[in-house]
Amino acid sequence: MTRVVALSGGVGGARLMHGLARALAPGELTIVVNTGDDFEHWGLRVSPDLDTVMYTLADLAHEERGWGLAQESFATLEMVRRYGGDDWFALGDRDLATHLLRTEALRAGEPLSRVTARLAARLGVTARLLPMTDAPRRTMIDTRDGRTLPFQEWFVRERAAPAVRRVWYDGASAPAPGLLEALRAAELVVLGPSNPYVSIDPILTLDGVRVAVEEKPVVAMSPIIGALAVKGPLASMMTELGEGPPSAGAVARHYRGLLRGMVVERGDEASVEGLPVLGTETRLRTRADSARAARALLGFAAGLA
Amino acid sequence: MTRVVALSGGVGGARLMHGLARALAPGELTIVVNTGDDFEHWGLRVSPDLDTVMYTLADLAHEERGWGLAQESFATLEMVRRYGGDDWFALGDRDLATHLLRTEALRAGEPLSRVTARLAARLGVTARLLPMTDAPRRTMIDTRDGRTLPFQEWFVRERAAPAVRRVWYDGASAPAPGLLEALRAAELVVLGPSNPYVSIDPILTLDGVRVAVEEKPVVAMSPIIGALAVKGPLASMMTELGEGPPSAGAVARHYRGLLRGMVVERGDEASVEGLPVLGTETRLRTRADSARAARALLGFAAGLA
Repeated sequence: MTRVVALSGGVGGARLMHGLARALAPGELTIVVNTGDDFEHWGLRVSPDLDTVMYTLADLAHEERGWGLAQESFATLEMVRRYGGDDWFALGDRDLATHLLRTEALRAGEPLSRVTARLAARLGVTARLLPMTDAPRRTMIDTRDGRTLPFQEWFVRERAAPAVRRVWYDGASAPAPGLLEALRAAELVVLGPSNPYVSIDPILTLDGVRVAVEEKPVVAMSPIIGALAVKGPLASMMTELGEGPPSAGAVARHYRGLLRGMVVERGDEASVEGLPVLGTETRLRTRADSARAARALLGFAAGLA
Repeated sequence: MTRVVALSGGVGGARLMHGLARALAPGELTIVVNTGDDFEHWGLRVSPDLDTVMYTLADLAHEERGWGLAQESFATLEMVRRYGGDDWFALGDRDLATHLLRTEALRAGEPLSRVTARLAARLGVTARLLPMTDAPRRTMIDTRDGRTLPFQEWFVRERAAPAVRRVWYDGASAPAPGLLEALRAAELVVLGPSNPYVSIDPILTLDGVRVAVEEKPVVAMSPIIGALAVKGPLASMMTELGEGPPSAGAVARHYRGLLRGMVVERGDEASVEGLPVLGTETRLRTRADSARAARALLGFAAGLA
């Protein structure tokens, strides 16, 4: 029995979580997912990272694209367009079922953590899936051109084009029920290969979380390969926020004081200073990649004890 | 210029409305639609009659079935089932766009009459389409087995099986803005071939509506052909409510004091007493049927003046 708490954002993190869920027994793994990107669309509460992790763990995710469901259709979106409605975010027809049932339950007063557990169980997810908080907490982007945008509008509608001056978190800071307890019981904390600013820090900055994480062995997987982000706008954000040039080492420095070890792409080992490093294949394209990387990470973490 | 106000429920009424909309100029026709069947499903506000009329007028309705959209798919429903969600009412993927945009607008404080005008205009509907009220008003069914059910639960979930003891209307009684004005300006009021109890009476019992209608020439089209309802549970309701056996004449008696004339299926003329009657083909299967019947009704009404 190894109790692991893993922190995750969307696609990259979700793929490592899939591997961890296969490598560990159901009761051993708690996955804490960023909800700072959540937003309302067509009147529905959309939780992109939570759904990406849930669909990935349920083997329902679109495998190449990473987000959304495999075999998805977009008939609702097409009709919304006909009405002249908002079409900047493409919600699929099957995906809509998740947002509809979640939104209805939230409006009826059920907390997000309980809705998530219920929906995930229905899809056959056996790992414990926990949104970072039940309260609204939004990742905000201050841009160099003087605007403040919720993450999703900056990322999807503006295609992550406006340069980033600052990232901050708006709203509540209470972690979800059970999160601190899971951290206290953990023997290992894993930081997924997700964007530190908009996926992991929103979790670490919740009340009491960083302190609880600091008391545990922590291993991170780098979301940077060479000087490029595996996915998304991380590389340019690191430079714009003054933490670049992008490298696994820069990510390690961002998490300084927290890490017991770092897993990086083979060949990137030298960029990380003053920490045990495992070089391996971190580009997680297939379920086999995820399984192998998760086992390598867990073996590496065990060797650090 | 003939100003016409037509009252309508779902499928049957919608088809006559389609004919009237073709026979009259856009500024001449106001269609007032029952919203007593409206309900919440998956957290969305569903207005079955309003949407049936809107889709029919926009030539988007499923032609044989009458309700819903042609070329509809049900991917969201399939996923809702996977989650174990409510699946007793089948909302299609394209249809969902209507409910999503309407619900979002209502939550933002836009009245139903304005949302409806906006959505209908986007679909190219030129007749004025007015929900009977902006306020919640629900048609309720008291059953012989002692239960009280909102219409939609009785009709769809219980398949209209429990015998009806009483029909009543719960909630507000204020007509939609512009409804009384449209009636005052009307030269003719048409009662569509809809269920009197659950489609037309919910409109007629709104504050001031019946009095305003009584001052105008009123022509109804019978929803009963022979002794059978064209569609839906009307025939058994008439018997259960003590107004049967079902016939065009029984419908005329239900509307007594209101009608100037009645349009019935050819052959049913004799069932109507003490009123001018037009016998014609009232089974509206195609758009040509609807156009012909609407022209016949308007000609008949003109001859009554």
